[in-house]
Amino acid sequence: MSQIIRIAIDAMGGDYAPVEVVKGAVDAVKEHDNIKVILVGDSDGIKDELSRHEYKKEQIEVVHTTEVISCNEGPVEAIRRKKDSSLVVALKMVKDGKADAAISAGSTGAVLVGGQVITGKIRGIKRAPLATVIPTMKGVSLLIDCGANVDARSEHLVQFAQMGSIYMERVVGVKNPKVSLVNIGEEEAKGNALVKEVFPMLKELDTINFAGNIEPREIFDGETDVVLCEAFVGNVILKLAEGLSSTLIHAIKDGIMSSTRGKIGGLLIKPALKDVLKMFDASEYGGAPLLGLNGLVVKMHGNSKAKEVRVAIGQCIAFMEQGINDKIREQLGKK
Amino acid sequence: MSQIIRIAIDAMGGDYAPVEVVKGAVDAVKEHDNIKVILVGDSDGIKDELSRHEYKKEQIEVVHTTEVISCNEGPVEAIRRKKDSSLVVALKMVKDGKADAAISAGSTGAVLVGGQVITGKIRGIKRAPLATVIPTMKGVSLLIDCGANVDARSEHLVQFAQMGSIYMERVVGVKNPKVSLVNIGEEEAKGNALVKEVFPMLKELDTINFAGNIEPREIFDGETDVVLCEAFVGNVILKLAEGLSSTLIHAIKDGIMSSTRGKIGGLLIKPALKDVLKMFDASEYGGAPLLGLNGLVVKMHGNSKAKEVRVAIGQCIAFMEQGINDKIREQLGKK
Repeated sequence: MSQIIRIAIDAMGGDYAPVEVVKGAVDAVKEHDNIKVILVGDSDGIKDELSRHEYKKEQIEVVHTTEVISCNEGPVEAIRRKKDSSLVVALKMVKDGKADAAISAGSTGAVLVGGQVITGKIRGIKRAPLATVIPTMKGVSLLIDCGANVDARSEHLVQFAQMGSIYMERVVGVKNPKVSLVNIGEEEAKGNALVKEVFPMLKELDTINFAGNIEPREIFDGETDVVLCEAFVGNVILKLAEGLSSTLIHAIKDGIMSSTRGKIGGLLIKPALKDVLKMFDASEYGGAPLLGLNGLVVKMHGNSKAKEVRVAIGQCIAFMEQGINDKIREQLGKK
Repeated sequence: MSQIIRIAIDAMGGDYAPVEVVKGAVDAVKEHDNIKVILVGDSDGIKDELSRHEYKKEQIEVVHTTEVISCNEGPVEAIRRKKDSSLVVALKMVKDGKADAAISAGSTGAVLVGGQVITGKIRGIKRAPLATVIPTMKGVSLLIDCGANVDARSEHLVQFAQMGSIYMERVVGVKNPKVSLVNIGEEEAKGNALVKEVFPMLKELDTINFAGNIEPREIFDGETDVVLCEAFVGNVILKLAEGLSSTLIHAIKDGIMSSTRGKIGGLLIKPALKDVLKMFDASEYGGAPLLGLNGLVVKMHGNSKAKEVRVAIGQCIAFMEQGINDKIREQLGKK
């Protein structure tokens, strides 16, 4: 692909902005010749950071904005009011065709609202779900919707299943990915009204490889590729997994450090423990794409550092090169 | 309390029935003078097992039944058809006042349906929630509803909050327990339609100590006492926590065992690791009570052994001695 992929980044979003965002952008342009990164935010601060790095000047552009949306603001109101915020300007660049993708580590609510309202959905897509790659015992799976559309209906979930399947196949590279529906029992008759309604609809789709229900206990075994659920449940899964793994690791560390014997043993198992932690480290997998938009919007974790920014940029490149939106339009779009 | 507490146990339910069920019952009557255990199931098998133990004969009675409900049967149909099953007979003993409580490690669906249909709810209680004690970094919390009533409405959750609070205060012994609503954000305005509707209702209740929303990430920190949610979400939390902790522990063990250095270290940290595992070991906390019934029904994990049975019996004793149902009737019941 000879075309240049243009990625707008909210340089003011996240705990380590703009320092780590700028560093990640520089690392990415060193890795990829075919991209241009547009850093959106306070230009003085951004340029100051950029001056510390060596890179091809034509690959990074700075767009100055004067406002920042914080995580404490109501997202709908903030998006409406702060027209010159780094996030709104970055999203608008995608809408206006000045960028192919936008990335932000800022307020999740504002990214979700802004993605749907400013960037806009593909014609025919009813809701834009947030998807995230989660680590499992066998590799990775895609959790979709992990937080964008609470109170979604069955027709929305059917679209999420198809978009998740396309993403997993083309961006992550899993052939004919298995799609499973999160339920509190394996049998078709189990569950609440929503999953009972959506199950037969998924069974009838010939565009996905539907593998039936998956119980939450099995999600991290990695037997399926796309873990489908509505956003409230998806967000519970994502946040509980984050919280519980950190709780368990802390408890184990505390236990080890409470005796001399444990301390010596702890030193010996450190490399092994590190490998496990790395396996469950979200930074390896970039950000969470909001699917079904005219363009691409990627939400990164608030505590993202340069590495995550670099990986998220790589994710945007794969998304564009693989023509995900063309495929979504072909399968789900309306003329 | 001088009155004898009578506990009917489904001696055929669970992976280790009747051997472990009988052993647990024997251990419990040795511990408690004021109880009588009624073992319900195949009398030959039960008596055979009983003959291996020493105990006061008047404390254990056997009631013969000819049928068993398996986990693969549709619960509604099974409860209706298998009138002489160990579970149905045990539940009916509670209904008929021949027992104060029933315990089963059999089919969860059948216990939930049977509890509501056979044993019956307290007048004024709209739904009977399943509650379970979960281990946290600071002790234990009560997760309610963890699986009984999918598609519950706000008025149901309000009752669950009150019953959970009563249980936590009187059975677990937490003074003025904090009740938190599971939500995907901390602010009142966050979440789906159900939690947005129930939040102000909980805030107005003067019978509970409502502490606002809790995000799934924080559940295992143990900052709250009653973790309130509807059954689909509750079951996801319970099952995901079980699955993920076992996945993590396995990954750590595999990592340790993959090198000699790790193996030696592993031996040294074994006691510490064991303590952590014990902390998260559900067997310490008995079974899951179905609250709001005329009597008490406790669902044990399918893989329960003698220890869990003994603990669940202790739980029934506390429930009776603390007059939980009188308190529920007083606060929520209708004349």
